[in-house]
Amino acid sequence: MKIAICQFNPIIGDIKGNKEKILAGYKKGCENNVDLVVFPELFLCGYPPLDLVEKKEFRNALQIAAEEIASKTIDVGLIFGSITEDEDDNVGTNIYNSALLCYNGEIKFVQHKTLIPNYDVFDEVRYFESAKTVEVIEFKNEILGISICEDIWNDADYWKHRRYPLDPIQHLYEKGATILINISASPYSFGKRKEKFEMLKKLTSDDNLHLVYACCVGAQTELIFDGASFCFDNKGKMCLLGKKYEEDFLIYETKNNYNEILEIESSFEDEVISALILGIKDYVQKTGFKKVLVGLSGGIDSALVTYLAVQALGKENVHVVMMPSIYSSEGSIKDSEKLIYNLGISSENISIQPVFDVTLKQLENSFKNKSIDITEENIQSRIRGLYLMALSNKHNYLLLTTGNKSEIATGYATLYGDMCGALAVIGDVYKTQVYQIANFINKEKEIIPNEIILKAPSAELRPNQKDQDSLPPYDLLDKILQLYLEEQKEKNEISQIIGNEELVNKVLRLVDLNEFKRKQAAPILRVSKKAFGYGRRFPIVQGWRK
Amino acid sequence: MKIAICQFNPIIGDIKGNKEKILAGYKKGCENNVDLVVFPELFLCGYPPLDLVEKKEFRNALQIAAEEIASKTIDVGLIFGSITEDEDDNVGTNIYNSALLCYNGEIKFVQHKTLIPNYDVFDEVRYFESAKTVEVIEFKNEILGISICEDIWNDADYWKHRRYPLDPIQHLYEKGATILINISASPYSFGKRKEKFEMLKKLTSDDNLHLVYACCVGAQTELIFDGASFCFDNKGKMCLLGKKYEEDFLIYETKNNYNEILEIESSFEDEVISALILGIKDYVQKTGFKKVLVGLSGGIDSALVTYLAVQALGKENVHVVMMPSIYSSEGSIKDSEKLIYNLGISSENISIQPVFDVTLKQLENSFKNKSIDITEENIQSRIRGLYLMALSNKHNYLLLTTGNKSEIATGYATLYGDMCGALAVIGDVYKTQVYQIANFINKEKEIIPNEIILKAPSAELRPNQKDQDSLPPYDLLDKILQLYLEEQKEKNEISQIIGNEELVNKVLRLVDLNEFKRKQAAPILRVSKKAFGYGRRFPIVQGWRK
Repeated sequence: MKIAICQFNPIIGDIKGNKEKILAGYKKGCENNVDLVVFPELFLCGYPPLDLVEKKEFRNALQIAAEEIASKTIDVGLIFGSITEDEDDNVGTNIYNSALLCYNGEIKFVQHKTLIPNYDVFDEVRYFESAKTVEVIEFKNEILGISICEDIWNDADYWKHRRYPLDPIQHLYEKGATILINISASPYSFGKRKEKFEMLKKLTSDDNLHLVYACCVGAQTELIFDGASFCFDNKGKMCLLGKKYEEDFLIYETKNNYNEILEIESSFEDEVISALILGIKDYVQKTGFKKVLVGLSGGIDSALVTYLAVQALGKENVHVVMMPSIYSSEGSIKDSEKLIYNLGISSENISIQPVFDVTLKQLENSFKNKSIDITEENIQSRIRGLYLMALSNKHNYLLLTTGNKSEIATGYATLYGDMCGALAVIGDVYKTQVYQIANFINKEKEIIPNEIILKAPSAELRPNQKDQDSLPPYDLLDKILQLYLEEQKEKNEISQIIGNEELVNKVLRLVDLNEFKRKQAAPILRVSKKAFGYGRRFPIVQGWRK
Repeated sequence: MKIAICQFNPIIGDIKGNKEKILAGYKKGCENNVDLVVFPELFLCGYPPLDLVEKKEFRNALQIAAEEIASKTIDVGLIFGSITEDEDDNVGTNIYNSALLCYNGEIKFVQHKTLIPNYDVFDEVRYFESAKTVEVIEFKNEILGISICEDIWNDADYWKHRRYPLDPIQHLYEKGATILINISASPYSFGKRKEKFEMLKKLTSDDNLHLVYACCVGAQTELIFDGASFCFDNKGKMCLLGKKYEEDFLIYETKNNYNEILEIESSFEDEVISALILGIKDYVQKTGFKKVLVGLSGGIDSALVTYLAVQALGKENVHVVMMPSIYSSEGSIKDSEKLIYNLGISSENISIQPVFDVTLKQLENSFKNKSIDITEENIQSRIRGLYLMALSNKHNYLLLTTGNKSEIATGYATLYGDMCGALAVIGDVYKTQVYQIANFINKEKEIIPNEIILKAPSAELRPNQKDQDSLPPYDLLDKILQLYLEEQKEKNEISQIIGNEELVNKVLRLVDLNEFKRKQAAPILRVSKKAFGYGRRFPIVQGWRK
C-alpha cells in the first residue's frame, strides 16, 4: 500500500482554511497515485480547540465541512481528524475526538479516540468521551488499525506505570490489523521525540506491524508541534522521517525496502532554536501581524529573542528600541548597537530618564519619609513597558517579551514592566540554556556580540546592580529549578542533591509565591516537559510554602 | 443521631492550620455531646488544591496530618475530606478525593469520590481516580451513606441529561443507608443554591433519607464558597441552613422536629455584594496583606469596588488615589471626593498630566507623521497603572482592579493600564448589574454619590469621550454577552433574539478576539455560572471568528 502523510499546519478554528489544506493534500496524494492520504489529529479544527468544542455551531460547522470533504473523495482513501458527535443518549458529552476515513464520496468509517489525556497541557476529558469500541477496517487488501495519538502511548510491555487500564492498540492487533495508522497532535518538548521512537520501535517489531504516524506541525499560541511524522516497517525499522518544524508531504510504500533512519533528534540548541523560531512565526502570522518589537537592554535575553525574531520573520520585520536610564552601563547601548548592526535591523533610542524624573517628582508627596526600595526599580521597568506598548500600539508591532525561565520561576521580573508583551519567547528556557544557545549561534561567526555573552547579568535598575545580588548563581539556581519543575522532585530530595537546604527552601518558596505574577504573564512558548502556563496549575492564594 | 457540621474556612495548602481547625471543630462537637462531626470536602488541604496534588511530599504531609487527627478522636465520629492514595497498581494516579471517618483513635472508614467533575472550573480528572466501590458504614445504630459533592449531582430522576452513567447515591440507598452525609466544596454562582435545594428536596423525600450536607465557606483566589450548609429530614424538608458567606457550626438531631426553612436565597444584589466582600477579604487576608488601594476615576466601577473594599476590610484599610488629566471632567474629582467623604477613607490626588506630557515629548520622534489614535489613550491609562503600582509597592497596598465584565468581555480596557491589579473584584459583574448593585447600596442612604450613578460612562481619555461611542448601549450589550457567555447560545440564536445580526457579530467577534488581554488579566471573582478565568478556556490564536 502507498500512503501519503500530509504534515500540514492548521489554524485552530479556521475550518474553511483547514478544509482547503485537506483538499489540497488529498489532491496531491491522488496525483502521486497513493492509496491513502493521512492528516493529523483534529486537523479540521486545529489542536487544541479548547472550549470551542463546547459550541454547537462550531461542531456543526465541522460536520458540514467533513461531509463536503468526503463528497470530493474518489477511490483513494483519506483519513483526517475531526470532532464528531453521537446521538444524545442523555449521559455525558456524546462528543468524540475522531479519525474519519473517507473514499468514494462518503465518510466510510469513524474511529473515536479511546485514551483521553487529561494531564499537563491536556484537558481532553473536559470535552471528549472515550470510544466505546475499537475496530479495524479492510481497505484495498490491507487491514487498517486506526488510532489517535494517546491511544498508542499505553503499551503494557513498554511502560512500567500506565495511565490507563485499556490498550486500544492491542485490540487492533488482535483484530488482525496489518498497518497501524496513528494520527497525532503531540506538543513538542525536547527529548520527547526520542522517547516516542524507542517506544514505537519496540511496539512495531513486537507486533510485526507497519506504522504510519502523522504529526501536526506549527505553533498554536504556546504549544509547538514539531512535525517529524514517520513510518516504521513491520520489523521496527524507521523508514521515513518528515521534516522538523515545517510542513512536509511524505509517501510510504509498505512493499519497499528502506534504509533505517537513525538520526532523529538534533542537539538541544538546534532543536530549541528551531522550535522557538516556529513559535514566533506562527504566533505573529496567525494573528495577522507583520512586525515585531523587542526592547533591547544590552543583556543576553533580549539579544537572543531579537536574533530568533529575525530568523522567524526576516530582518525587515524586527524593530528594536533601547531605553537607557542613568543606571544603564555604557555597554548597554554600545553592545546593543553592535547586535543591531550584525542583524541589520531598525532601531531607536529613547531615554526613560525624563519620564522617570517627572514620575518621581509627582510621587514625591506619596513617598515622603519612605526610603528608596524596589519601587523605584519597578518604576523604571514599567516606564520601559509604557514605551514599548506605545510603540506597539502606534506602529502595530507585536511586542515580544524577553524573560527567561529562571526569572519567571523566581519572580525576578516586573509585572507590567519587562513582563509586557504578547508572547514570552524564551520563558521556557533557563538562563544557563540561554547562554548555551547564544554560544551555539555564535559558533561559526559572532552574531550575538561577545560582550553581551560575557558581562555579568544585570537589570541595571540601580547603581552596580547584578542579578547575583538577589539570586543564587544561575548554574546552581537552574539546577534547583530543573529538579523542582521538570523532574518534579520533592524538597528533601533536592536538598540532598544540592547539599544546601536553606537555599533550596528559598528558591522553592520564590517559585511558589510568584504564581500571581505568572497568572498575568504572556503565553510562554513550551519547549520543556513542564513549562509555566497552561500545563502547570497552582493556587495563587495558598499556605503550602508561605 | 446528633450531628455537627463545621462550616469552616480553610486555606489551600495550609495543612497545619486546617488541621487545627478540624481539631477545634471536633472539640466543640464533643462539648456539645454530638455523635458525629462533619467537615467539608478536601478540608484538610483546602479546595481546589490544583497541582499541589501532584506533589508526593504534599500528599505525605496530608497523610500524616490525617493520622494525627484520627489519633485524637474518642467515641465521637469525625468525617473530613482529604487526599488519599492506594497502593500503586501500576495503572492511573492511584490518588483519591476521599471522605475519612475517624473515631476511637483511628481512621475507621474511607469512601472515595465516585463522580469526578471535569468541566468549567473543575479539573479533578487531572488528579483523582474514581472510587471503585461505594459502601455504607454502620455507626451508632445508623447506616451512614457518605458521598462527596458531585456524587450527589447525578440523580437519574432529576436530570434530563446526566454527566455520568453511575449514581453512587442510588448504591448507598440500595445498601440501606439511613442518613446521607455529603461533604462538599462547590463554588458559588448566583442561582446555584436554589437549584441544588430543589434537586435535594426531591432526592431526600423520594428516598426517605436524612441528608447532612457540609459546605465550604471562604474564597480561594477567584472561587467563592458561600457556606449555607444544610440538613434535610427524611420527608424532604429543609430543617437547618448555615450562615451564608461566613463560618458556622450547626447541630442537627435526626429525631427532632424542625420548622421548614423556605428562604434560601436573597436578592441578586444582596448575594453578590456578600460574595464579593468575602472574595476581597479572603484574598487580602490569606495573602497576608492589610490594606488595599483603588484608583478612583469618578466612575461607577471604581466607586463600587471601593465601597466593597471598605465593607470587606474596614475604612482604615482602604486608600484611594485620584489621577486626573486634562481630559478629566470636573466631576471626576468632585464626585470622588464626595464618595471618599461618605466612606471616610484616606485619599490622594496625583495628576498624570506632567508624566503624560513628558512621555509624548520623548516619543515625539517615534510618532512623527502618525496621527493621534488609541495609543495616546492607552498611555494615559498606563501612567495611571504606573502610579498605582508604585503606591502599591511603596506602601504595601494590594491593588484592586475595577474593570467590569462588559469591559473585560469586549476588551474595552487597557492591558497594563486600568487592568493592573492583583484581583478583579467586579470582573464577573456586567455594567448594568453594577448600576443595579449601586442603587441597591443607596436604597436607604446615598453612599455612592448619585452624580456617579447618573453620569454617562466615560474613560475620559479624550475630549468628550463616552463609552457608548465605541460600544453598543450597555443594556443591549449585556444582554448579548449574557446570552453568549452564561447561556452559551449560538450566534444565530442570539441574532434572532436581539434582531440585529451585524451588532451580534461585532460583539461576539470582540469577545473572541480579546482572549489575549484576558490571558494577562488579574484573577476575577466568580459570581456567575460562567466567569472569565479558570473555567473558560479559549485559544488565543484562532481563526474561528477572525
